[in-house]
Amino acid sequence: MNVGIVGSTGYGGVELHRLLSNHPFVGDCILYSSTLNGVSYAEQYPHLTDLSTESVRGIQVDEMKELDVVFLAVPAGISKEMTPKLLGGKARIIDLSGDLRLKDPKEYEDWYKGEAADTSVLSEAVYGLAECNQEAIKEASLIANPGCFPTAALLALAPLIQQKLVQPGSLIIDAKTGLSGAGRKPSLSSHFSETQENLRIYKVHEHQHTPEIEQQLKLWNPEAAPVTFTTHLIPMTRGIMTTIYGELLTDQTTEELHELYRSFYSGSPFVRIRPIGQYPCTKEVFGTNFCDISIKVDPRTGKVTIVSVIDNLIKGAAGQAVQNMNLMFGLEETSGLHYYPIYP
Amino acid sequence: MNVGIVGSTGYGGVELHRLLSNHPFVGDCILYSSTLNGVSYAEQYPHLTDLSTESVRGIQVDEMKELDVVFLAVPAGISKEMTPKLLGGKARIIDLSGDLRLKDPKEYEDWYKGEAADTSVLSEAVYGLAECNQEAIKEASLIANPGCFPTAALLALAPLIQQKLVQPGSLIIDAKTGLSGAGRKPSLSSHFSETQENLRIYKVHEHQHTPEIEQQLKLWNPEAAPVTFTTHLIPMTRGIMTTIYGELLTDQTTEELHELYRSFYSGSPFVRIRPIGQYPCTKEVFGTNFCDISIKVDPRTGKVTIVSVIDNLIKGAAGQAVQNMNLMFGLEETSGLHYYPIYP
Amino acid sequence: MNVGIVGSTGYGGVELHRLLSNHPFVGDCILYSSTLNGVSYAEQYPHLTDLSTESVRGIQVDEMKELDVVFLAVPAGISKEMTPKLLGGKARIIDLSGDLRLKDPKEYEDWYKGEAADTSVLSEAVYGLAECNQEAIKEASLIANPGCFPTAALLALAPLIQQKLVQPGSLIIDAKTGLSGAGRKPSLSSHFSETQENLRIYKVHEHQHTPEIEQQLKLWNPEAAPVTFTTHLIPMTRGIMTTIYGELLTDQTTEELHELYRSFYSGSPFVRIRPIGQYPCTKEVFGTNFCDISIKVDPRTGKVTIVSVIDNLIKGAAGQAVQNMNLMFGLEETSGLHYYPIYP
Amino acid sequence: MNVGIVGSTGYGGVELHRLLSNHPFVGDCILYSSTLNGVSYAEQYPHLTDLSTESVRGIQVDEMKELDVVFLAVPAGISKEMTPKLLGGKARIIDLSGDLRLKDPKEYEDWYKGEAADTSVLSEAVYGLAECNQEAIKEASLIANPGCFPTAALLALAPLIQQKLVQPGSLIIDAKTGLSGAGRKPSLSSHFSETQENLRIYKVHEHQHTPEIEQQLKLWNPEAAPVTFTTHLIPMTRGIMTTIYGELLTDQTTEELHELYRSFYSGSPFVRIRPIGQYPCTKEVFGTNFCDISIKVDPRTGKVTIVSVIDNLIKGAAGQAVQNMNLMFGLEETSGLHYYPIYP
Repeated sequence: MNVGIVGSTGYGGVELHRLLSNHPFVGDCILYSSTLNGVSYAEQYPHLTDLSTESVRGIQVDEMKELDVVFLAVPAGISKEMTPKLLGGKARIIDLSGDLRLKDPKEYEDWYKGEAADTSVLSEAVYGLAECNQEAIKEASLIANPGCFPTAALLALAPLIQQKLVQPGSLIIDAKTGLSGAGRKPSLSSHFSETQENLRIYKVHEHQHTPEIEQQLKLWNPEAAPVTFTTHLIPMTRGIMTTIYGELLTDQTTEELHELYRSFYSGSPFVRIRPIGQYPCTKEVFGTNFCDISIKVDPRTGKVTIVSVIDNLIKGAAGQAVQNMNLMFGLEETSGLHYYPIYP
Repeated sequence: MNVGIVGSTGYGGVELHRLLSNHPFVGDCILYSSTLNGVSYAEQYPHLTDLSTESVRGIQVDEMKELDVVFLAVPAGISKEMTPKLLGGKARIIDLSGDLRLKDPKEYEDWYKGEAADTSVLSEAVYGLAECNQEAIKEASLIANPGCFPTAALLALAPLIQQKLVQPGSLIIDAKTGLSGAGRKPSLSSHFSETQENLRIYKVHEHQHTPEIEQQLKLWNPEAAPVTFTTHLIPMTRGIMTTIYGELLTDQTTEELHELYRSFYSGSPFVRIRPIGQYPCTKEVFGTNFCDISIKVDPRTGKVTIVSVIDNLIKGAAGQAVQNMNLMFGLEETSGLHYYPIYP
Repeated sequence: MNVGIVGSTGYGGVELHRLLSNHPFVGDCILYSSTLNGVSYAEQYPHLTDLSTESVRGIQVDEMKELDVVFLAVPAGISKEMTPKLLGGKARIIDLSGDLRLKDPKEYEDWYKGEAADTSVLSEAVYGLAECNQEAIKEASLIANPGCFPTAALLALAPLIQQKLVQPGSLIIDAKTGLSGAGRKPSLSSHFSETQENLRIYKVHEHQHTPEIEQQLKLWNPEAAPVTFTTHLIPMTRGIMTTIYGELLTDQTTEELHELYRSFYSGSPFVRIRPIGQYPCTKEVFGTNFCDISIKVDPRTGKVTIVSVIDNLIKGAAGQAVQNMNLMFGLEETSGLHYYPIYP
Repeated sequence: MNVGIVGSTGYGGVELHRLLSNHPFVGDCILYSSTLNGVSYAEQYPHLTDLSTESVRGIQVDEMKELDVVFLAVPAGISKEMTPKLLGGKARIIDLSGDLRLKDPKEYEDWYKGEAADTSVLSEAVYGLAECNQEAIKEASLIANPGCFPTAALLALAPLIQQKLVQPGSLIIDAKTGLSGAGRKPSLSSHFSETQENLRIYKVHEHQHTPEIEQQLKLWNPEAAPVTFTTHLIPMTRGIMTTIYGELLTDQTTEELHELYRSFYSGSPFVRIRPIGQYPCTKEVFGTNFCDISIKVDPRTGKVTIVSVIDNLIKGAAGQAVQNMNLMFGLEETSGLHYYPIYP
């Protein structure tokens, strides 16, 4: 299987390169960039000395269409331009940006402050939440790979929402992320001296992943209401935790909900439901495609607290993209993703 | 004014020593420990080389009673034993532990898993939330200095709760803290390799600061209901952020609530209400007694998000204790606390 | 191939477990501990939830002797007791502690402040510096796996010393390490609040890896003199850098030395000599068995600066141990060690 | 005393603002910038909310000349242009950049790769190494404030070099710094995800502080030879450590050298010589103007190891500048600099 990575010089791209270079069914892995052409990849990323001899190439649509898969690991705004040119070729497309996730163009315009992709493209895109949408993913020619926060939040919420166990409108998603989610482009908000020994909240009520979460919740339960979603920058490189609060509609116990989650994810090799009373930390999924989840009911308040953690660059981006590729090509879901967490 | 610090070798104690040594109205500052006797303080804390020539001494009740103030910077369980012996002397007592904060002994037993202090002691203790309880503090001979999380949470909530603007029972307090709150005693959960590049949630629904927050909320609004309170360990040394969510009872705008907060804290030199649209980060109060607060209404959900940050060792412990001392002795509230944040 | 890990609950042990569990030629991997018996490994290390169902077992010498390899990932002082009991069985032994590295018992006593292993054991132990001692390693039944600092320093020095290009007695090795080298046992010097945002020098002129480095240098060049070796704690978890300074005996240029190093390590898959003018950082080998090296001559001073980096838990411990196992059993040197650095 | 800060929006500038705003003898503190004009300082640095109401102003030479002191906290290349315009006014000038430190214009051109300042300006500039050059500083109208690394290295070396106790040509200075030394301008090398959990060496044999160190060593001992000087980036914000190695010319003991250092710095309130066997770490001077030093002789090698630490933004920049101002105006050397380290 031959694949291409557009946006290969970003953090999502280099993580895709790592996973795909070690994937048992991937042959050529061609590196593209919309801004660089002809530069050595190992010069951009010296940790790849002796491991990569590739050069990063400019966009070549005709060539890309002949590959088996093209991954678009580009910022929002680019894939909506590029996807229409690639569709119709041999290559199936997995888009890691936010451009193709929202079915309603108005939502995109409101939250991304730009023009949405063409509706024909949007309607073809299948939302690649791998654990919850496998049948559609297997048939898809175009995948909208979920955002990092939505992945962590939706996996944590799926059993509860599908079973309609929480009060619509009571959901609070307090999300925390490492800095790598901000990408490789330097800025004041990712400058070491401004972020180390610091904790920052950002985009309060304004994060563009909000409608992505809400869209999926509504598909699971049409009564789902707007959620409160806030994001915090943690002084670490990788890792996302979402702490989610909701009001229970019935008197479920921790044990019952724990059993529900165990059962719901019994066939999902990348979701680990932790034993009652044990809570995951981000380092425990570092370097892997796992999403670890804990759940606890508070009888004092009638509320439930759910905790989920992922490695934002893997399960929140490149890893889930590879998982989707595996599903699309009838491979084992875990092919090329058998990594243990690096600990400590 | 001569003062004593019990528990001087902990992080709260050394921060008290720093503030009191540079306080314009403090003369002698005597260092006590319940476990060490006769050791050089600068050997325990080499950053004090040439700054401290004191030795740490064992507990000496008679001597301590003759001081002006005794600070108890000890773990829970010790000050409930020591306070009765000190009461009745000249010294006024400021207790930084959790022993004397809960008026209801049953609450203490439930959350601290130990026997509560004598009710006569509890009834004498004044809760030292400096911005909100000044009249009582000025007259007090015994102060229960608030916990670090309650300080950040209660200052963020006071205007809203006193004005009864949020739905009782809807409050979610998602708290994040640096590691210094865990003290100086080594443990696996504060071991560098286990905490760096990591984010951990702990004591879910079980943190002993929960009843302390609820007790004060009920004093402000008797209808206040149990709150959901969770705590997270951030890979940094100092700093607490609380992100608080509540359902508004009326159609308040961000502008109206912002004005309420500005007005409520107009006489409070250590509370800084941030401009609308700007959110504080923990580093912006590092090394100071400030509590910075932002507030924002989300019209989509009818909920409000409040963010507060403090330096947990200062406003959350030693700084507020000195502020209380200032109030008790009729000094300027800011005496000895005129520090700018260390940034970056 | 069936293997055992003694000391499986330490950081070296858990890293061995990760590498061996994913090694294509390893079957059973049995976990031993000299202090625990019967506890679940995944409870000790929750990141292994669903990945490990093993229990940690007490020492069982007879059983261990029947394995193919026993790894001793124990603190200094234990393997000198355990090795004699295991020798003579089927199992070949790879000792990761410092007990068997120094051939001269007096050196051990001077630097480790304890009694040395039996000389018959010492004489059987082969020093497992994999790149430089392959013939002996292949035949060995007992390997003394090198220390983390000696690995980084010796690989950086081998070409220069073997070629006798530097002034004996001029060598300065300024070493820097992350905290994981200190192990999992909590202590004040590895307490987060004492180490984060901090840089510490320790064991000045007293580090027990000094004689290990000198012993090997003397084997390469009998005129080698005592070296100056200092170690610093860097606020990060993994990674070692050694910055080495020496006075050149002749007018070598950077280009000539660079070519010497390229040539010397041309058959070594885990040593990467960086292009002239590019210097490795520790993150660029994170999670791998690589040792990256740069070299530069300073014509102003007649001195050479060599920089080497490793992941201390892999090339400096578990990875090199597996590399030695591969060599001992005639496997590809890189079997089970094909990892790309995790970046960022 | 009225002062001005040019380059007030950089990290050196904001630290000067903090120190000068709390200095007992400073009245107005006017903020200038060569790139901004009319912007609120507290918007640039929100940690100054309520503490600063100033606006940053464009350069106003005539006004600046009437101040008592002008601090130039600007990048190299700017103060050599600005200083000639300011000289001759009432204001004394303290330049924190590298422009005026090297007396030999050719050295500047070689190491800074730009044109040197006018020789008349260079000859007027007094090198502001406060502990070692007090008489000249007191009379100076123009101070070249030392670089951060030279401050740490020269204070560590002064007694040894002045006493001619080390072999000229044997000196190795292995320096380590936090990231704040790189300033506030974002770049890949100060991007959080590239620097956290990472250790980097940079500018090997090429750092522009090399000739500054050598120039001063030659003034102390004309036989001083070129030094080997390397710099490393530590994943922390503040702090510099220099580890210095030299070959002793005579059989000095640790005790003798320790006594020499104690005696040499007995009148220097900001230099703390640590007890024999105790070594300073950077956190122990965090937030202060201290330089802490330890020294140890290694009888095995005949070499000496000296360790010094400073807070790079204070003793390495703003603090020493204020110390120089105090000396120039006949104030107590410690005025406005009585800070205890913030620990932990």
